[in-house]
Amino acid sequence: MTQPTRKDEVAADAPVSEDATLTFIGRIETPWPRREDCPRRGRLDGPECTLIVDPPWDRALEGIEGFEGLDILYWLHQSRRDLLIQNPAHADRVRGTFALRSPIRPNPIGLSRVRLVRRAGNRLVVRGLDCVDGTPLLDIKPETCPAAGA
Amino acid sequence: MTQPTRKDEVAADAPVSEDATLTFIGRIETPWPRREDCPRRGRLDGPECTLIVDPPWDRALEGIEGFEGLDILYWLHQSRRDLLIQNPAHADRVRGTFALRSPIRPNPIGLSRVRLVRRAGNRLVVRGLDCVDGTPLLDIKPETCPAAGA
Repeated sequence: MTQPTRKDEVAADAPVSEDATLTFIGRIETPWPRREDCPRRGRLDGPECTLIVDPPWDRALEGIEGFEGLDILYWLHQSRRDLLIQNPAHADRVRGTFALRSPIRPNPIGLSRVRLVRRAGNRLVVRGLDCVDGTPLLDIKPETCPAAGA
Repeated sequence: MTQPTRKDEVAADAPVSEDATLTFIGRIETPWPRREDCPRRGRLDGPECTLIVDPPWDRALEGIEGFEGLDILYWLHQSRRDLLIQNPAHADRVRGTFALRSPIRPNPIGLSRVRLVRRAGNRLVVRGLDCVDGTPLLDIKPETCPAAGA
């Protein structure tokens, strides 16, 4: 599948290899139905979004209420994966993919550090995300290691 | 594959589904040959580690020298994936997987925020990692979005 590139962009010749598999643990509800509606990056004072964690993984949320800062990983399912050099609309020159936080990358995993607003069962309401509504959820990590006794 | 659990740990019954695939873009050299040697979490004043980015992805490093802080994603290839509730050796009680930064998680993706020390071709020397020597590399993201004109 060869997709068009913008001026001066460079794509890899070969398809990406398949070395490991991911499982979707849930999905994310956001106010942005299309990719072009999304902010370039989430803000901690941005709108509320909801992480919905499917069974059996919802049980793994036990104790999450004790953390305010969470690192969220999600799968940027609409992204192509082959670009090495990109020409982002917002930038004044081309850059390597690893010098950008663009969703286009060999492993299109999104990462946002968010603030937990509240939990309701298998739903976590957070602020700080930037992804399209319906994005598959991969992981939730506390920003800090829990202290012994905490 | 059912593995033994520690006291009060809970594992998922079903195997993880396979919803997306990852490609390994390189590997990480660290001073820790075995998982039990690794620090619980990387420190920015920790030892130097080296990210080795394989072709064709090395070309995507263009411009990376302009960033000091990088988010590194890597595949925790030695980790089981089925635990919902864990009883970490360092903790005083059990916790849900998503309330821990344990390598054991449904998608065992490690995340460290590191400091770039220097680049030599397809090798990035960094401080702040915590993973075992030979860990597969998934992604490199600048901590901040590049400013226009920067």
